[in-house]
Amino acid sequence: MITAAVIVIGDEILSGRTQDANLNYIAAGLRSCGIDLQECRVVSDKEDAIIEAVQALSKRNTYVFTTGGIGSTHDDITSASVAKAFNKDIVVHADALKLLESYYGDNINNARRRMALAADGAILHERMVFQIENVFIMAGIPRVMREMFDSLLPKLQHGEPILSVSLKAHVLENDLADELFEIQKNASDVVIGSYPFYEENDKGTCLVATSRNAIRLAEVEKQLQALIDSKS
Amino acid sequence: MITAAVIVIGDEILSGRTQDANLNYIAAGLRSCGIDLQECRVVSDKEDAIIEAVQALSKRNTYVFTTGGIGSTHDDITSASVAKAFNKDIVVHADALKLLESYYGDNINNARRRMALAADGAILHERMVFQIENVFIMAGIPRVMREMFDSLLPKLQHGEPILSVSLKAHVLENDLADELFEIQKNASDVVIGSYPFYEENDKGTCLVATSRNAIRLAEVEKQLQALIDSKS
Repeated sequence: MITAAVIVIGDEILSGRTQDANLNYIAAGLRSCGIDLQECRVVSDKEDAIIEAVQALSKRNTYVFTTGGIGSTHDDITSASVAKAFNKDIVVHADALKLLESYYGDNINNARRRMALAADGAILHERMVFQIENVFIMAGIPRVMREMFDSLLPKLQHGEPILSVSLKAHVLENDLADELFEIQKNASDVVIGSYPFYEENDKGTCLVATSRNAIRLAEVEKQLQALIDSKS
Repeated sequence: MITAAVIVIGDEILSGRTQDANLNYIAAGLRSCGIDLQECRVVSDKEDAIIEAVQALSKRNTYVFTTGGIGSTHDDITSASVAKAFNKDIVVHADALKLLESYYGDNINNARRRMALAADGAILHERMVFQIENVFIMAGIPRVMREMFDSLLPKLQHGEPILSVSLKAHVLENDLADELFEIQKNASDVVIGSYPFYEENDKGTCLVATSRNAIRLAEVEKQLQALIDSKS
């Protein structure tokens, strides 16, 4: 199984100032490639917090993606913290510096040069994404993050496709619950999610079944449809 | 310092199906009460994942808030998992059951009764929020979660107010970075965040300074304003 974790880095998310818009995009992209997103952590712009998350999540996942904290200002400490998490020095990445110099020309300054700093041995991908071990460092600004993530996705090892069916029932969750227990009990390789919805004039439950086994999924879909029909 | 952590529980968030809308609301509410939100974890509907997050975060924070996984279906395992995290049995909470019976009347069924299950010794708050140790269990549906959270907030221990000023500069972040390093270095009890924005015809940087010390914050605000003026 190919797994991933996301680390959203930013005081602005934890203060309520900004609504994160990156996790959802990354989650959908990984899902489309059969990669299992296991966990996301939102941490502040503090070295200790970043190091702890990187060490915990990089050990037990194929890939880790960070968002945020990669600009040129004092609060952009992701690169340095990821380096420290792996006990690596932070050094000027020669190719990154060349790119920055050619992009900024005469407008290059110390602040812009700092964006070429990365952990010793970091791999530079397109759109200035650094990779340290299995950690990919991406921007926090959603527009930039999306370009970075989209350029990385084809390079990753993809997993077996995750199949999913979604059934909308105009029946309350409570009235499906007992039978859902039974169906789930007998379908160990299918995961059934039950999501109530309450819209005006439209209440009910959305049932989502997910599996890597198409035959088992089709069987469960039939059972769920029969349950819905029996209650409608 | 009064601190908090949030655990968002739900496969639907990690699959990309649903955009979380709860963290931002909780974050803003805690901030308004001087409570420091330290971390958020998004985990799947798996017992092990929930237990690990609850144990790690409840130890080092004043409060932990969970969202999601509290309905009556097989995938609603938050209550049972939080109980397990604290080595407690899961039992019928008599007052919760009474409330459910009086609410549902003749429509009470096994599924609805299951919503009265909680860790032994759990405290029942308004709107069916269970508290186990320092963990508050809330719904995943944003409308319901907000009602629950709003009813809890006045009961929590509040922290010293967190003050904040925000300055909009029509100057690129890179052109402020060197001076921001200096200002931050000399202002240890103020945290300065630098957030570039790129809107059509409007590029620049938003500087946000945060502190519990009003005098130091006012000094830093002056320094930041002087920096912006010198670059504009």
